Amino acid sequence: MSKRTPTLIGLPWDSNSSYLRGAAAAPPLIRQALFSPASNSWTESLIDISLPGNLSDAGDLTLPENDDALLLIEDGISRLARDRGLPLALGGDHAVTYPVLRALEPLHPRLNLLHIDAHPDLYAEFDGKRFSHACPFARILEEKLIDRLVQVGIRGMNGHQKTQAERFGVETIDMRSWAAGIRPRLEGPLYISIDLDGLDPAFAPGVSHREPGGLSVREVITLIQSLPGPIVGADIVEYNPTQDVSGLTAWVAAKLAKEVIARMLETNPQG
Amino acid sequence: MSKRTPTLIGLPWDSNSSYLRGAAAAPPLIRQALFSPASNSWTESLIDISLPGNLSDAGDLTLPENDDALLLIEDGISRLARDRGLPLALGGDHAVTYPVLRALEPLHPRLNLLHIDAHPDLYAEFDGKRFSHACPFARILEEKLIDRLVQVGIRGMNGHQKTQAERFGVETIDMRSWAAGIRPRLEGPLYISIDLDGLDPAFAPGVSHREPGGLSVREVITLIQSLPGPIVGADIVEYNPTQDVSGLTAWVAAKLAKEVIARMLETNPQG
Amino acid sequence: MSKRTPTLIGLPWDSNSSYLRGAAAAPPLIRQALFSPASNSWTESLIDISLPGNLSDAGDLTLPENDDALLLIEDGISRLARDRGLPLALGGDHAVTYPVLRALEPLHPRLNLLHIDAHPDLYAEFDGKRFSHACPFARILEEKLIDRLVQVGIRGMNGHQKTQAERFGVETIDMRSWAAGIRPRLEGPLYISIDLDGLDPAFAPGVSHREPGGLSVREVITLIQSLPGPIVGADIVEYNPTQDVSGLTAWVAAKLAKEVIARMLETNPQG
Amino acid sequence: MSKRTPTLIGLPWDSNSSYLRGAAAAPPLIRQALFSPASNSWTESLIDISLPGNLSDAGDLTLPENDDALLLIEDGISRLARDRGLPLALGGDHAVTYPVLRALEPLHPRLNLLHIDAHPDLYAEFDGKRFSHACPFARILEEKLIDRLVQVGIRGMNGHQKTQAERFGVETIDMRSWAAGIRPRLEGPLYISIDLDGLDPAFAPGVSHREPGGLSVREVITLIQSLPGPIVGADIVEYNPTQDVSGLTAWVAAKLAKEVIARMLETNPQG
Amino acid sequence: MSKRTPTLIGLPWDSNSSYLRGAAAAPPLIRQALFSPASNSWTESLIDISLPGNLSDAGDLTLPENDDALLLIEDGISRLARDRGLPLALGGDHAVTYPVLRALEPLHPRLNLLHIDAHPDLYAEFDGKRFSHACPFARILEEKLIDRLVQVGIRGMNGHQKTQAERFGVETIDMRSWAAGIRPRLEGPLYISIDLDGLDPAFAPGVSHREPGGLSVREVITLIQSLPGPIVGADIVEYNPTQDVSGLTAWVAAKLAKEVIARMLETNPQG
Amino acid sequence: MSKRTPTLIGLPWDSNSSYLRGAAAAPPLIRQALFSPASNSWTESLIDISLPGNLSDAGDLTLPENDDALLLIEDGISRLARDRGLPLALGGDHAVTYPVLRALEPLHPRLNLLHIDAHPDLYAEFDGKRFSHACPFARILEEKLIDRLVQVGIRGMNGHQKTQAERFGVETIDMRSWAAGIRPRLEGPLYISIDLDGLDPAFAPGVSHREPGGLSVREVITLIQSLPGPIVGADIVEYNPTQDVSGLTAWVAAKLAKEVIARMLETNPQG
Repeated sequence: MSKRTPTLIGLPWDSNSSYLRGAAAAPPLIRQALFSPASNSWTESLIDISLPGNLSDAGDLTLPENDDALLLIEDGISRLARDRGLPLALGGDHAVTYPVLRALEPLHPRLNLLHIDAHPDLYAEFDGKRFSHACPFARILEEKLIDRLVQVGIRGMNGHQKTQAERFGVETIDMRSWAAGIRPRLEGPLYISIDLDGLDPAFAPGVSHREPGGLSVREVITLIQSLPGPIVGADIVEYNPTQDVSGLTAWVAAKLAKEVIARMLETNPQG
Repeated sequence: MSKRTPTLIGLPWDSNSSYLRGAAAAPPLIRQALFSPASNSWTESLIDISLPGNLSDAGDLTLPENDDALLLIEDGISRLARDRGLPLALGGDHAVTYPVLRALEPLHPRLNLLHIDAHPDLYAEFDGKRFSHACPFARILEEKLIDRLVQVGIRGMNGHQKTQAERFGVETIDMRSWAAGIRPRLEGPLYISIDLDGLDPAFAPGVSHREPGGLSVREVITLIQSLPGPIVGADIVEYNPTQDVSGLTAWVAAKLAKEVIARMLETNPQG
Repeated sequence: MSKRTPTLIGLPWDSNSSYLRGAAAAPPLIRQALFSPASNSWTESLIDISLPGNLSDAGDLTLPENDDALLLIEDGISRLARDRGLPLALGGDHAVTYPVLRALEPLHPRLNLLHIDAHPDLYAEFDGKRFSHACPFARILEEKLIDRLVQVGIRGMNGHQKTQAERFGVETIDMRSWAAGIRPRLEGPLYISIDLDGLDPAFAPGVSHREPGGLSVREVITLIQSLPGPIVGADIVEYNPTQDVSGLTAWVAAKLAKEVIARMLETNPQG
Repeated sequence: MSKRTPTLIGLPWDSNSSYLRGAAAAPPLIRQALFSPASNSWTESLIDISLPGNLSDAGDLTLPENDDALLLIEDGISRLARDRGLPLALGGDHAVTYPVLRALEPLHPRLNLLHIDAHPDLYAEFDGKRFSHACPFARILEEKLIDRLVQVGIRGMNGHQKTQAERFGVETIDMRSWAAGIRPRLEGPLYISIDLDGLDPAFAPGVSHREPGGLSVREVITLIQSLPGPIVGADIVEYNPTQDVSGLTAWVAAKLAKEVIARMLETNPQG
Repeated sequence: MSKRTPTLIGLPWDSNSSYLRGAAAAPPLIRQALFSPASNSWTESLIDISLPGNLSDAGDLTLPENDDALLLIEDGISRLARDRGLPLALGGDHAVTYPVLRALEPLHPRLNLLHIDAHPDLYAEFDGKRFSHACPFARILEEKLIDRLVQVGIRGMNGHQKTQAERFGVETIDMRSWAAGIRPRLEGPLYISIDLDGLDPAFAPGVSHREPGGLSVREVITLIQSLPGPIVGADIVEYNPTQDVSGLTAWVAAKLAKEVIARMLETNPQG
Repeated sequence: MSKRTPTLIGLPWDSNSSYLRGAAAAPPLIRQALFSPASNSWTESLIDISLPGNLSDAGDLTLPENDDALLLIEDGISRLARDRGLPLALGGDHAVTYPVLRALEPLHPRLNLLHIDAHPDLYAEFDGKRFSHACPFARILEEKLIDRLVQVGIRGMNGHQKTQAERFGVETIDMRSWAAGIRPRLEGPLYISIDLDGLDPAFAPGVSHREPGGLSVREVITLIQSLPGPIVGADIVEYNPTQDVSGLTAWVAAKLAKEVIARMLETNPQG
């Protein structure tokens, strides 16, 4: 049986962002940082992602300015997964995670999800939109696309979302718990969804919703490197270049992408 | 007896800044971030600060370019406190803390002060000015406006200020002690004075005196959330928008303000 | 015997940078921050570096756009060391460290080196250049200019450099080890080489190669303050002002310089 | 009869901004640039504005987050004008101009207004607000507070506002006409209202609505210097520090303020 | 006969950029500015581009990291033009113009081209690449895809390109000629290719090759508004968001797009 | 007789800056832009400055933090000029122009000087310093080092400097005159001194004293290209990288340097 290959796929879609747009422009900038001569192609565990078979690129999907994009994302990811790709989706905003999970559910009926974010994104709807970037995990849980949802980095919870979290049995490790030393216990198969605003904006200023008091890049890397496998998919979302005055956040997205790829390669049966 | 309400009051005054001006422009920018739709109105302990009675706003004082401002600040805070407000002053530079404490002393003859800052601000005078932003805690201690002064985040001590600190019995937890795990032991009633340069400038670049090697936002939040009460007043000072290239520091000030408000509500008798 | 004095010497040379130039412009900007009235002249251990005998300045060397610069640096540092200066070299890029060590070897035949960096800089050659800023520690180890090389902050290792590290017996504390609590054990005499990209780019954005996931400023300061002596020389390199949108990195370089000077004064026999 | 003195008055109010807030923070930053030691106190026509009698400062008004601010502005300007001040209002957004003109109308029943802006600000209402910053000149013309309205720099006209302009007899010199060499013919008494977005955003990036293709700073200065008198009042509005990444726009606002002051002094009977 | 509609089409391709990449990320950011509520939907000639039939959007093409992209662009534009669209291509770098012109040639065998740029882009090859962004007009002229090439804004000519320009009969209005008042005389049918670095980088900093001394935004708008018709296609290329620290250039690209759309509508037979 | 060669010489000195330091860091950054692959090596008049004999580089002088630097600059320029170099000095602040002129006076007893600047720099002294960057032209005229001083771009004149200008017979073309179409009439031999703040800060934000309302880059280039010869020396000063948020000003300095070199080559007898 042939090996499954981590595969980049750009989802340049931010039509359902609630406050600022811009995340749709992220994929080429993350790719540029990932392949820049400023760095090299080796992960921290000394895997060379430029070797054949270690990384593919499915390009960016062409997505319209309406919710038809949800179906197109679901189709694109389904195709990629059927072709034995391990999708590493580059957002776009967080609204893309719901159709990605819909595409993966048939292949991975038992799936746990590690969600790194400042916000729970559990709204029943937001500004009248059910597919807003504030809602994907409500949709995912309603449709039972995953078994467990573990959220890390949360510091923008509110009453409504707290009710939703309790209703769906979401396991929340908010920043107060994180600062007290609580860490998630996870088992695979696992999907990782990284909203860059889970990081403190000192580390990742290029996001639409800057919520100070978040994770450091090293904390997120350590968490990724500690995950059990298999990692069957991941996304890195909400990089908003219009807010990235110093250009730093593209490098952060690329670094996290590289370590996710490493962990995919380490935890999936090869050959 | 009616409940005391956390109340914003802007003190747009930087006439006694020693190096750069700009802090006077801070209050509207902090308010803008605090009430921005980019975030929601709930604190980390799940208090909704938009609920009636949880937060008032007394506007900004009109302050002249001379030391008459000190009396106007003292009067303004006195009035606010008499009206059962718990003042959360938004600077302006650190020179505003002295008149705020003068206003609170009659109501709180026994008061401890937690001071977060890179600098002790204990100069007997600076550039010939007794009310410079480098001097407020010397004035406060000379007039015995507080019982204990505990300083956290210090990394710009010098000989003169060391002598002052010893003379006044200041309890200093400098960054070396902090990095070694030392934390303050405090009891209420308590006033919190947060100079944003106590944070590392990676987290809060928009300050007049950038001193690398400071606290993270999360460390300050954890400290605030751990404080005993009652918290009877607070200030957040030295936000200088002219140095805030990425606009990040306004969000940091607003986040700290929100958590201070939460702690005020939690530690003051309600109803 | 007269006392050895920490002495600034600027090495404005970046001809052998591989990706971006700009580091040659660093020395005057670091000096400007070090002596700025925004801060004071005292270290965290309360030494006043403005006192006579605590700090000298040998100015900047005039260096050509070719490898003749290597000899000129070696000569300049030799002269400075003979005059009883403890060199604190301000880069320039990392290529300057090799000639500095050549100059120090005759005076310090037994020398250990603490190297803080995101990258091992151990390439046998890079882009066909043996004196590239990616190669200095290969040269230093080939010529046995030091006894031990201990690297901290590494997160850009690759296969070739891993082989080099093993061949030369380099002791690597990469960021994964650092995050797990590993710290270097060092003894003097000691040379410190600080590449600012060892810091996370949130703390030091002004570098040519931004590699997220690095050290905080406080972590580096704590490490410096813990070093045994005598510290016989140091460099702070790779500050690239063209990438320092917010101007923050100059302050970081100056802060680290001040703490290195403090540690030099504390660990060298005085008078 | 005593001389009328140009007088700064800050109107830190942006509650009725339609797209971005931030203009409320402008007044202290404009003052800081105006009095900065980076420049001197002489105008281009060699008047020293630091001489007694050449410039007063009435401070900033304290304004609430609702339309009561309109009355407070009207009152504040009335008082200032009665005290023989020539108001130079520092916004705040453009909504402040309407109450300023209401205050001036009793003193200057015949008044012409030169309006420099990218937009006509003639909406009958905007987002349901009649006092939006998009509407002030509709209000001013409805109440016949001025005789002539001459607009310069316009490049964001639309159908509704065109209708309004025709209905009110507004004289529009849009950027196409300006580029073709058309200049306004004005006579006094004159009020000048400068929205900084009338300038090209290359010259004044710190505005809420960046509309490329506008005036240069020199073009605006030449226009101001050519105006007949008497200049009986002026405002400089819509400086939004949150958009002013390089800090340039504060200097532009201050420069224009200085030249307006010069023209006020030159065109008003002295002594 | 149905009317031809100006139609946006994104060409997110910068694989053949010679110095910096990033232009591939431009299309969503230009669209965001074009449809932002910060402005309105009317052109300077008072056409509302939001009215049905005035503007379509064909989305972004999906393009690979190799020269196959050239064929895909040619196909995409051919299809768009067959569907009666007037293509307004949003780059990507300047390499996209060659395949766009290949697509248009069959429909417009007689076509003149107005090229606004700092550089002639006439290299026979660059870095060994014939389809580099430095070469498109050599390819276009070799294949006789146009009748006349008129270049405006040139200030980076060199010997080789001068020879090419003479060989192909290119009409060059360099900045020295422009500053002396020379303007192009054009007749339709006309294609407009706007490289944003034709503008002075004060107006458009977000480009890969900043060449000071260029055109103002107003000069380019005046030129566009003066063009004879019919305008049968256009591109706006080389917007590089990674260099656009202040975010200004996205607004400039959108403004120019709006005026090009206006001129397309005015110069093409309607209905 | 051998040909005189335009020769770069860096003067990294800003010890006598009155408001902000930083200009000392300019020379390597200007060189980096001048030789960057982002542009090519040809001037607008199609001279290739990379050809042998068209440009030399004498490196940077090593200069101390006191007025001894003045003598070292004079000596360095004297040596360069004796070696048949045509000095193109890269500041540093404007204080360097006085010693440059002292060095040139013996070779060019009849010399006219074109001075582009926002400020006349004619103070008799400033902050008690006779060699401040605010004073060089007073020194130059007192010592009769030149015949005529023609100043262009002035918009920061004041009373004292007006008196000085009249006393020394300075010919001032301030921005009001420039905007009215006045241009200088000059004859050679000629020295050109370009303070980058003569440009509008939209074009050159990286200066210590931003004075809006200045020249465009194209206006300065047109002026340089129109100058009679021979051009016997020049300086480009006051580039302050710490204020150059977008990095634009380094490119402007390099562009002006290239055109000055072109004019030197065109106006000096060759071979």
